[in-house]
Amino acid sequence: MDIPMEPLFGAGIWHFGQYVDRYATDGYGPPVSTLEAIDRAGQVGSLSVVDLTFPFAPAELPVSEVADALKRNDLRAIAITPEIYTRTFVKGAFTNPSESVRREALALISAAAEVGRELGVDYIKLWPGQDGWDYPFQADYAEIWKYSVEGVRELAVAFPDLKFAIEYKPREPRNRMVFSGVARTLLAIEEMGQPNVGILLDFGHSLYGGESPADAAQLAISRGRLFAIDVNDNFRGWDDDMVVGSVHLTETVEFFWTLRRLGWEGVWQLDQFPFREDQVQAARDGIEVMRAIYRAIDLIDEDALAAAQKAQDALAAQRIIRKALLSTLPD
Amino acid sequence: MDIPMEPLFGAGIWHFGQYVDRYATDGYGPPVSTLEAIDRAGQVGSLSVVDLTFPFAPAELPVSEVADALKRNDLRAIAITPEIYTRTFVKGAFTNPSESVRREALALISAAAEVGRELGVDYIKLWPGQDGWDYPFQADYAEIWKYSVEGVRELAVAFPDLKFAIEYKPREPRNRMVFSGVARTLLAIEEMGQPNVGILLDFGHSLYGGESPADAAQLAISRGRLFAIDVNDNFRGWDDDMVVGSVHLTETVEFFWTLRRLGWEGVWQLDQFPFREDQVQAARDGIEVMRAIYRAIDLIDEDALAAAQKAQDALAAQRIIRKALLSTLPD
Amino acid sequence: MDIPMEPLFGAGIWHFGQYVDRYATDGYGPPVSTLEAIDRAGQVGSLSVVDLTFPFAPAELPVSEVADALKRNDLRAIAITPEIYTRTFVKGAFTNPSESVRREALALISAAAEVGRELGVDYIKLWPGQDGWDYPFQADYAEIWKYSVEGVRELAVAFPDLKFAIEYKPREPRNRMVFSGVARTLLAIEEMGQPNVGILLDFGHSLYGGESPADAAQLAISRGRLFAIDVNDNFRGWDDDMVVGSVHLTETVEFFWTLRRLGWEGVWQLDQFPFREDQVQAARDGIEVMRAIYRAIDLIDEDALAAAQKAQDALAAQRIIRKALLSTLPD
Amino acid sequence: MDIPMEPLFGAGIWHFGQYVDRYATDGYGPPVSTLEAIDRAGQVGSLSVVDLTFPFAPAELPVSEVADALKRNDLRAIAITPEIYTRTFVKGAFTNPSESVRREALALISAAAEVGRELGVDYIKLWPGQDGWDYPFQADYAEIWKYSVEGVRELAVAFPDLKFAIEYKPREPRNRMVFSGVARTLLAIEEMGQPNVGILLDFGHSLYGGESPADAAQLAISRGRLFAIDVNDNFRGWDDDMVVGSVHLTETVEFFWTLRRLGWEGVWQLDQFPFREDQVQAARDGIEVMRAIYRAIDLIDEDALAAAQKAQDALAAQRIIRKALLSTLPD
Repeated sequence: MDIPMEPLFGAGIWHFGQYVDRYATDGYGPPVSTLEAIDRAGQVGSLSVVDLTFPFAPAELPVSEVADALKRNDLRAIAITPEIYTRTFVKGAFTNPSESVRREALALISAAAEVGRELGVDYIKLWPGQDGWDYPFQADYAEIWKYSVEGVRELAVAFPDLKFAIEYKPREPRNRMVFSGVARTLLAIEEMGQPNVGILLDFGHSLYGGESPADAAQLAISRGRLFAIDVNDNFRGWDDDMVVGSVHLTETVEFFWTLRRLGWEGVWQLDQFPFREDQVQAARDGIEVMRAIYRAIDLIDEDALAAAQKAQDALAAQRIIRKALLSTLPD
Repeated sequence: MDIPMEPLFGAGIWHFGQYVDRYATDGYGPPVSTLEAIDRAGQVGSLSVVDLTFPFAPAELPVSEVADALKRNDLRAIAITPEIYTRTFVKGAFTNPSESVRREALALISAAAEVGRELGVDYIKLWPGQDGWDYPFQADYAEIWKYSVEGVRELAVAFPDLKFAIEYKPREPRNRMVFSGVARTLLAIEEMGQPNVGILLDFGHSLYGGESPADAAQLAISRGRLFAIDVNDNFRGWDDDMVVGSVHLTETVEFFWTLRRLGWEGVWQLDQFPFREDQVQAARDGIEVMRAIYRAIDLIDEDALAAAQKAQDALAAQRIIRKALLSTLPD
Repeated sequence: MDIPMEPLFGAGIWHFGQYVDRYATDGYGPPVSTLEAIDRAGQVGSLSVVDLTFPFAPAELPVSEVADALKRNDLRAIAITPEIYTRTFVKGAFTNPSESVRREALALISAAAEVGRELGVDYIKLWPGQDGWDYPFQADYAEIWKYSVEGVRELAVAFPDLKFAIEYKPREPRNRMVFSGVARTLLAIEEMGQPNVGILLDFGHSLYGGESPADAAQLAISRGRLFAIDVNDNFRGWDDDMVVGSVHLTETVEFFWTLRRLGWEGVWQLDQFPFREDQVQAARDGIEVMRAIYRAIDLIDEDALAAAQKAQDALAAQRIIRKALLSTLPD
Repeated sequence: MDIPMEPLFGAGIWHFGQYVDRYATDGYGPPVSTLEAIDRAGQVGSLSVVDLTFPFAPAELPVSEVADALKRNDLRAIAITPEIYTRTFVKGAFTNPSESVRREALALISAAAEVGRELGVDYIKLWPGQDGWDYPFQADYAEIWKYSVEGVRELAVAFPDLKFAIEYKPREPRNRMVFSGVARTLLAIEEMGQPNVGILLDFGHSLYGGESPADAAQLAISRGRLFAIDVNDNFRGWDDDMVVGSVHLTETVEFFWTLRRLGWEGVWQLDQFPFREDQVQAARDGIEVMRAIYRAIDLIDEDALAAAQKAQDALAAQRIIRKALLSTLPD
């Protein structure tokens, strides 16, 4: 019997929520509850896991109802993402100048971790988008760094049975984020000295931060710290969260190829914001692209590519990839 | 009697409103009504005019109450900005694929124009931030262009006694905006062939769009189309809407110096988004910087600068500016 | 009868020359004469035309020898590009502060035009990469603009039988170029008021200048000013002049599809700088990619795409393109 | 007795050399020998040290003549920079695919180190601008990383009495550099495990790489690895190497203020490329700006700034800096 060999696909639950921005303050659509969003994720048809934001919407929603909704949609919670970037935390979560807000952030993350444990998630995602600074001279950078390292370390020590994945990003909403790139986040993680802290590498964040995402993945994997990935696409100047492969197809292939070559076997996960598109269709399209990439990787002439990379021969390497990917190459 | 010779200062009323973004979906502060925002503008102390978004908050607020609030705060409405970028218009206002939504946008702008007329504004501001495209292959660019030109022209013809100022911007919220830069907007305006359409030049939009804002101002003025300006600052990769002069002081001086040299006598207007700062203080600080710039301009050795520019001597020009601006230059 | 169903391919002759930059000041390879470069172009095998820089290397090389070299390589000169960006012109060609240098630039271009006429080129290419400014306050922008418009106009009037194609670019080597984008260049051209001035649209310049290249092409075509194109690729932050399609495949397809749909029938021309690669192979690879694109365009479901664009349906449009382009899509 | 209270000023000797780029291939001026460049540096009047590229021009120039030239100009060699980015090394120095070229790079650096020892330099500067990759799929990133770490470690071990300072940069001439940012370079240095390897932090590289230079300095200092700095300015999209403070005055002040506050006492060193300006004057201007900054730092209200930073109060912090810096603030 032939078993379909493909990775598990996942998505952040916000993919199916309401989007708001500073212009369309009334939202790109009506509010969406956690249960509704899970049902939409279920409609996609190929998703196996979702990453859930916490608190749920509404906040009083029992965990058991979330678990039921996941179950009826054949979904599992791969992660839980505490919302440490809403109004309480706009001046920072780990790095908030107020100690009481910093404690509040840790309390929220701890509560999320308890729920995550109950749901059996693989990791708690930390996305400290409000942790950083906006203006020159605003911050004492040593203090900001210390707050960040110590805050995450405290969580890692408190929940030794759980994994914490830091999602880095150059900026937004803060003008400058503390965890801005892969190397900086690894530096901080190694300073924490805990085994259960790692990285969630978002392809788009890496891309628009000036990294080569495949290289960033390699670096994180080489130090045993790549806990999860998200994919999407953008125009390289901002985190546009477009559908996978819509702009940077070759680099997306390189990213997934690198993961596979290095034996990284996690979920291929979507972090798209289809502001003006159908959410379910956008997820299906993202998965379609990932499937096409997965198949194309099988067609890559690995020996030839290894030789090309050994020689750092860009033209040869690109020809090999085109051959695997494109349908209309001349002979 | 010696009258203090300085420009009028103004601000967009949104400077004093509630900010929301896709992360802090509950807002950087509580909701703010139009009247409250006007009162905050009044607290600044040096503002003479404001640009009002329309519909008011709440929508049923009578114009007379707005007029009263302005009056008691010694403010005048310089402009009205119809909100053609909220949920109804997320797929475009002038360029929406649906004709009925396009008509709705024109209707909203027309209603705003009527109110503007009642309030005695100088211009109706058009900010078509949702007009454009997000993905390669999404749009028929010729059609998008035509919709934009024809839509604005129709308004200009319908309200010949009013002026319409298009605020261009490279992107956000749309990934690509139709009116993306000064030259492109001038091309469109000249194609419209109406005298009452011009440009609102936002310093920050120009900066992060790769323009030299002073040059952009010169170009618009040379064709008689600079109707208004907004100022703020950013890190050149996004429309950060920071306090004036906090990053690009010299280019801000150049911008205002150019306006003055060319005899442009409009309002010096703030478009800042102090997400995490005190709004009134941020406005005061922006005005303080503008005042310092205004005074520094008086200290510029104009003959020497003209000679330096004639010779395109960058070092000499910069020395002249430093001398006018800095307090601690060595002799 | 079998009509060759593909566009003509071309290349800038500098593709086959010596590259130098501010670090590898001894060059990425040894010096290359014009005749050697033409012979390399001939080796590519699929090139029909080349764009020649002038003066030739060496400067005293007779035009007849160039013509012979072209002939024996089955090549034709589509254009001539006067080098108005070398040492004499580092402070500008059209916009040089010295009138005598400005005249020298016009003289060089005129000499190039004479040679171009002799070689039967389609257009004289103007690439004013040193025309602009570097520092805030350095230039009188009105004067710089005037110099640019009047200089090109003078040429257009002097050579009414020839076409002049301005290649715009945001920057490099000058920090800011006068002819920085498509709209700005069109504004200037329309101000010139001559029929024989148009645009050479370089895909990479457009891309890293924040334009959508297909939209830029549409705009130039709509005004009858698209005289020529160059293609290559980059990482969107600089003019990397990489092999066509190596990063932005979909946007490259969109660009060529737009040209074809609008009936633009010029040469598909390479402007690549394979600094560390084999030049002939890089040209062959660029052409291979263009051929694959040409064939893929034939596979696009045009009716479906027209409907998707009418509805501005990004997901549908992208699906149609993927179907034409990729070999491994799931059913 | 009054001791001159200011830092030592320095410059890279290339500041006074010939500049070439891919357009002005005949150079922005005539060739300049090492001795001529040193004499130009001497003309500046306020320079105490220079960083010398190696091999000298001409290559056979005896070290003793260089030493004499330095002496007669009251200069000292602070560093030596082996040219591991010229034609031999365009495919990489440490990371060249050819082992023999990698050895050649180490040999050149070793020769430079010997000369540096003779001249009594403070550090050997490593600027591996050709080490990296250009295209997706070109390189095996793990191998490139290993080559980089092992190559530098080998040098550090071979010359335990000398210091090696890696100058990182996001890109140019290579599209992507291995040592691209401060965190990544620190990761690599810590992996090397040698005490005599550190960082040369170029303000402009940090700026256009998306870092906050003052934060980058803090991070390097906190790990004892900030060996040297270079300053200049740019438009944040490329390494324009403009005169210090011409665009980002406030961030330059923040950078120097941070160095001083953290007790870092190295040379304030110029890395400017005044392509079209007088080189000596450009250096004098850069120093004038640095002197103005040095004095302004003395005027900063440190207690107030510490309080503002403790509260992360951007507005207050900026007001304090404006007060120290600007001459025309309103009362």
